[in-house]
Amino acid sequence: MTISTIAIQGDQASFHDIVAHDYFGDSRRVFCDTFVGTFEALADGRADYALVAIENSLYGSITEVYDLLLKYKFSIVGEAYLRVEQCLIGFPGTKLEEIEAVYSHPVALAQCDRFLETRLPEAARHETHDTAGSVAMIAEFDNPRLAAIASRQAAELYGLDVLEASIETNKENYTRFVVLGKQPVQDGNKTSLIVTTGHQPGALHDALGVFARRSINLSKLQSRPIIGKAWHYMFHLDVDAAGPDVELAINELESQGCEVTVLGSYKSGQVI
Amino acid sequence: MTISTIAIQGDQASFHDIVAHDYFGDSRRVFCDTFVGTFEALADGRADYALVAIENSLYGSITEVYDLLLKYKFSIVGEAYLRVEQCLIGFPGTKLEEIEAVYSHPVALAQCDRFLETRLPEAARHETHDTAGSVAMIAEFDNPRLAAIASRQAAELYGLDVLEASIETNKENYTRFVVLGKQPVQDGNKTSLIVTTGHQPGALHDALGVFARRSINLSKLQSRPIIGKAWHYMFHLDVDAAGPDVELAINELESQGCEVTVLGSYKSGQVI
Repeated sequence: MTISTIAIQGDQASFHDIVAHDYFGDSRRVFCDTFVGTFEALADGRADYALVAIENSLYGSITEVYDLLLKYKFSIVGEAYLRVEQCLIGFPGTKLEEIEAVYSHPVALAQCDRFLETRLPEAARHETHDTAGSVAMIAEFDNPRLAAIASRQAAELYGLDVLEASIETNKENYTRFVVLGKQPVQDGNKTSLIVTTGHQPGALHDALGVFARRSINLSKLQSRPIIGKAWHYMFHLDVDAAGPDVELAINELESQGCEVTVLGSYKSGQVI
Repeated sequence: MTISTIAIQGDQASFHDIVAHDYFGDSRRVFCDTFVGTFEALADGRADYALVAIENSLYGSITEVYDLLLKYKFSIVGEAYLRVEQCLIGFPGTKLEEIEAVYSHPVALAQCDRFLETRLPEAARHETHDTAGSVAMIAEFDNPRLAAIASRQAAELYGLDVLEASIETNKENYTRFVVLGKQPVQDGNKTSLIVTTGHQPGALHDALGVFARRSINLSKLQSRPIIGKAWHYMFHLDVDAAGPDVELAINELESQGCEVTVLGSYKSGQVI
C-alpha cells in the first residue's frame, strides 16, 4: 500500500496534523506556513492531498480558503470535523499558582480567556505563531514556571503534562476541514458548489428553489465578492446530497442562467 | 446648529475620515484604534454617530463589524461608498527613480503591487499601521528619498505632493460604510436585517421568497455563525426597500418561524 503525503498548514501535533492523522492513518506530511502553501504543495506534486480548515463554529468561514478553492479548482474529496479542545500544558507536578507565563497562539489565548482570568490571573500571556510550537518552546526552555496552551497530542509529543484539560471558554468550538485532491471522487452524500446567479430580484431565491423542490438541504451558504464586479457576489453552497439529484439540480441552475462550478461530491465527515 | 461628533477607526485623512467629512460636513471626530472602539464611543456618549467600513468590493465583508452590529444593536441610519484611490506621496519634484523606500499599511501596499513591481522595483517596502500616518511619518523624517501610499487628502494635510495618482492595481476597489446612531431614522429606501431561519430543508429559500414575491431586491446576504449552536447560521440581509412593504415582509418571516432583528432603514448611499 502506498503511503499518502498530505499538505497541512502548521506543524507536528497542530490541529491540522491531528485531523490528518485521524483521516488518513499512516501518512506523510508537508508542513506549510500558510494556507496558500498547502495549495501550492498539491499543485506542484509534493503532496497527494491538502487538508485545510474551512470554517469554525465560533468564528465563521475562513474566507481566504474559500477564495483559494475558487482559484485552484481542486476537488473536495472529503471532510472532517474536530472538536477543538485546548489544554494547559506544563511540567509534571506544576501547580497553577506556580505558573508565571503562558504561551500560545493569540486565537487559543482568546479562546481560553475565562480560564486565564479566573485561574491564572497573575500569569503573563505571550503570543506565539503556533499552539504546538509553544509547547516545543517551553520544553526547550526547561522552566517549570512556564506553561503553554495547545492540544493534548502536543503535550505527549514533547513529553510534558496536561495540567488542566478543556480550558476553552466555549465548548461548542468545532472546526470543519476539507480534504482536497486533484481527482474528484464520484460518490458521497454531500456536494460543494460555487454558484453565480443573475442580478434580477429573486435570483438567489430561484436558485435555492432548485434544491428546495428536491428537498435537498442546504448546509452552508457563503457569499464572496466577484473581483472586478463591485457588489456582485458568488455563493459557495454545500448541499446534503450527491449523484443524479444534484446533477439535475445543476442543469436546472444553468438553465436559469446561473454559472455553476462543482468543487466536489464527498462523504460527509465525522467529528473526531 | 449643533456640530455632530463622529467616532471612526483611524486618524485624520484616513479613508474613514474622508467619508465622515463628506457625509457629515462640519463635524468633530473621536479617532479610535479599533472597530470595537468606535462602537464603545457611541455607547458611552462620546460620539453621536459611528461610521464604520462594513465591506470592500475586493475583500468582502468585514465580519468583525457584522458581529459588532449584532452585539451592540445600534441603528444603521445611513451608508456611503468610497472609491478607494491610492496615491504615491512624496516630496515635491521627486522622481520615481530617486525613491529608496515606500511606507504604507500592508493592505495598501498589496493593492498597489503591480505599480510597485513595475515602477519602483528597487524601493524597499515598509509596513505601517495606517496609510495617512505613513505620510505624517515621512514628512517628519524630511527625507525626499522616502515615499508613502495613502489618499490625496493625506498629501494635502501633511504638505507633500501626489507623485502619482490611482496606483492601485484593481480600479474596481470600493468600500461600503454604514453610519450608526442610537435612534432609528424612519425613512429611506434600504433596510438591513438579521434573520435566523428554522433548520428544515428549504428554510432559507422560504425566507427569501417573502422578498421575491414582493419584487424586493436583495443587495447582500452574509451568513454568520450562531455562537453556541455549531453549524447553525444567522443571515445579514440588505434589501432595496423600506416602509410598509418591508414591515409586511418581516411579519411574514416571523409567521414562518424566523427571528428577525431590524438594524435600520436608511437612504442608500452614493459613491464619493
